[in-house]
Amino acid sequence: MIYFDNAATTPVYPEVLQTYTEVASRIWGNPSSLHNLGSQASRILEASRKQIAELLGKNSKEIFFTSGGTEGDNWVIKGVAFEKAHLGKHIIVSEIEHPAVKEAALWLNSQGFEVDLAPVDKNGFVDLDRLEALIRPDTILISIMAVNNEIGSIQPISAISELLADKPTISFHVDAVQAIGKLSTDLFLTDRVDFATFSGHKFHSVRGVGFVYIKSGKKITPLLMGGGQESDKRSTTENVAGIAATAKALRLSLDKAQEQQKKLTAMKQILLQELDSYQDVTVFSGMEEFVPNILTFGIKNVRGEVIVHAFEEHQIYVSTTSACSSKAGKPAGTLIAMGVPQKLAQTAVRISLDGDNDMGQIEQFLTIFKQIYTNTKKVR
Amino acid sequence: MIYFDNAATTPVYPEVLQTYTEVASRIWGNPSSLHNLGSQASRILEASRKQIAELLGKNSKEIFFTSGGTEGDNWVIKGVAFEKAHLGKHIIVSEIEHPAVKEAALWLNSQGFEVDLAPVDKNGFVDLDRLEALIRPDTILISIMAVNNEIGSIQPISAISELLADKPTISFHVDAVQAIGKLSTDLFLTDRVDFATFSGHKFHSVRGVGFVYIKSGKKITPLLMGGGQESDKRSTTENVAGIAATAKALRLSLDKAQEQQKKLTAMKQILLQELDSYQDVTVFSGMEEFVPNILTFGIKNVRGEVIVHAFEEHQIYVSTTSACSSKAGKPAGTLIAMGVPQKLAQTAVRISLDGDNDMGQIEQFLTIFKQIYTNTKKVR
Ligand SMILES: Cc1ncc(COP(=O)(O)O)c(C=O)c1O
Ligand SMILES: Cc1ncc(COP(=O)(O)O)c(C=O)c1O
Repeated sequence: MIYFDNAATTPVYPEVLQTYTEVASRIWGNPSSLHNLGSQASRILEASRKQIAELLGKNSKEIFFTSGGTEGDNWVIKGVAFEKAHLGKHIIVSEIEHPAVKEAALWLNSQGFEVDLAPVDKNGFVDLDRLEALIRPDTILISIMAVNNEIGSIQPISAISELLADKPTISFHVDAVQAIGKLSTDLFLTDRVDFATFSGHKFHSVRGVGFVYIKSGKKITPLLMGGGQESDKRSTTENVAGIAATAKALRLSLDKAQEQQKKLTAMKQILLQELDSYQDVTVFSGMEEFVPNILTFGIKNVRGEVIVHAFEEHQIYVSTTSACSSKAGKPAGTLIAMGVPQKLAQTAVRISLDGDNDMGQIEQFLTIFKQIYTNTKKVR
Repeated sequence: MIYFDNAATTPVYPEVLQTYTEVASRIWGNPSSLHNLGSQASRILEASRKQIAELLGKNSKEIFFTSGGTEGDNWVIKGVAFEKAHLGKHIIVSEIEHPAVKEAALWLNSQGFEVDLAPVDKNGFVDLDRLEALIRPDTILISIMAVNNEIGSIQPISAISELLADKPTISFHVDAVQAIGKLSTDLFLTDRVDFATFSGHKFHSVRGVGFVYIKSGKKITPLLMGGGQESDKRSTTENVAGIAATAKALRLSLDKAQEQQKKLTAMKQILLQELDSYQDVTVFSGMEEFVPNILTFGIKNVRGEVIVHAFEEHQIYVSTTSACSSKAGKPAGTLIAMGVPQKLAQTAVRISLDGDNDMGQIEQFLTIFKQIYTNTKKVR
């Protein structure tokens, strides 16, 4: 099996699953309990928070656990909007945000907020000038993803941070779900970023755990209210085993990322060169300003779905665009936003690599690709 | 170790943890992926949903997975409010709801809703007449818990269902977190109930998984918007391993519940009789109309906290009130709502049993209790 769909989800590292089961079976107390089964659990929880904070170069008090990227995105978008509604009701998110950000923002329209979508250029990057032009005195929040999940473009978070340097009343949120471990942290977690969202299952942790970075002092209305956990910002009995597993997965992923960056770049380079050499192939992702693990392409007149299934017969797993919209059969929203015609956008196939993939797999992939390309010739 | 704090959380059953690790390590695909790693995961997901639905006597399409009880409660309260805001803005929740319901409802005040708290009588039961008196033409939602987490009183869900029989425009939500497996399902999941909340870790599943029952045809605004999972009602990459584990835990718990009901009742009866025989003990929970696993009492002038720590020295684990408010040192909100004076409410100690506890443990508990009672004599 060759798994090239790591942007959809990643397998749990065995060591991480082991941490999970150890904690779940041995330190299962409720961290809020007064007795020592509670304090044991609470210690693991806080040690995990500390480890994650240190790995990000942040303070423990700035890390809040969630159930994943979607909750984090919904929380920040809605929580900042409700918190700051008295200061203004204008929000900007990019046109290529994940639906967890985009749908949450668009829903706020029904609650009296105004939402503008910041456009991207033809290569899939937020246009700084056009973003700046959207900013108004009543803008309270801007949300721009660090790395796009459909084509892998790295958004200009540093430049946006500079743009916002003299606009302290605007909260700046970064969806970092596809960035962590793929990109050096300081490139997307700048000092100007107020909120950032992370999801464990994208870096080999268990499903159903994520966290949000909230810069010290920044206010947000909770999405999950109740028992007062997570400093009263996100209530529910804490998933201590999942959280400990996530801290471990983050450490392992960041350790590996350093070693594997070169290898990933080399693999993507070969893929890109080879695919580009086919006459009827369009490559949507580049090398510079793109993460090394994502490459999206299409074969003229062949729907991405057909290619996914053709590879599947060889136990090679890729995807059309994002996993969540693939079942709905929607074309990649990012490509449409870039101005790619609908018909071409529907050819999109996303390869998303992991540091554990190797050059042998790339070669096998390319061999099979050649066959598929030939087999689909008649429809082109 | 004697663990009598099962209302706070329960240990995962070993078989349940095994299901979790098997699914997490072998069927880790993203259910939304087009390829067969996705469809494999999707099949497990749907089989789990079906199993849970059948155990509750409901339809698969009526079960929606969440991250736990708090998310479920927040979702229903806010989601129904936002969905039905154009029909009315009045909400009623009981005075003794878990903070996940109460805080969510009270927050809606800031969004232009009006919230009334339905009072309880001196024994901890929602007063039907006073509830009825609160209902207005613009009432859109009533939320009443099935079993109170602080004293174990069973709320009159059937009677409220009758009361609401001719008021179809009012949505009826039941927080069933403490009821499932403790009480026959038909007693709290009547045909009139539109929404009900459940949490896995209260019945020996892993932490961070819950589900909401939504009666077919009932509309609700999502809390987690995004990729469109769970029929577009609750987005995020599904925690398939946690969900499969939860289905298994529910089956095991309901199987055991039948056998263990008598044993639990017998254990509680002994505890109640014995504790009641001490002059300075106040027992807040009764037998009839109370679940057999919860018994709350207090020793005059001795703070609950002191008793919890005294038991802890003997590796016996009980709690003050609910786990979440215990750390904050707040008195049991339910007791205050019942009219118990603050000082007496602060003595509250909650014993919450599980079917796996046994009579030997009850005897040990009572032996230690006698010591503690004697040792605290000087402060009374
Ligand atoms: C950029 C981005 N944001 C948010 C999410 C949502 O994450 P999760 O599946 O953990 O809810 C994803 C993944 O699906 C993503 O790629
Ligand atoms: C009645 C009740 N509702 C809701 C909850 C919240 O559940 P969870 O901890 O899964 O968020 C609890 C438990 O703490 C509870 O006892």
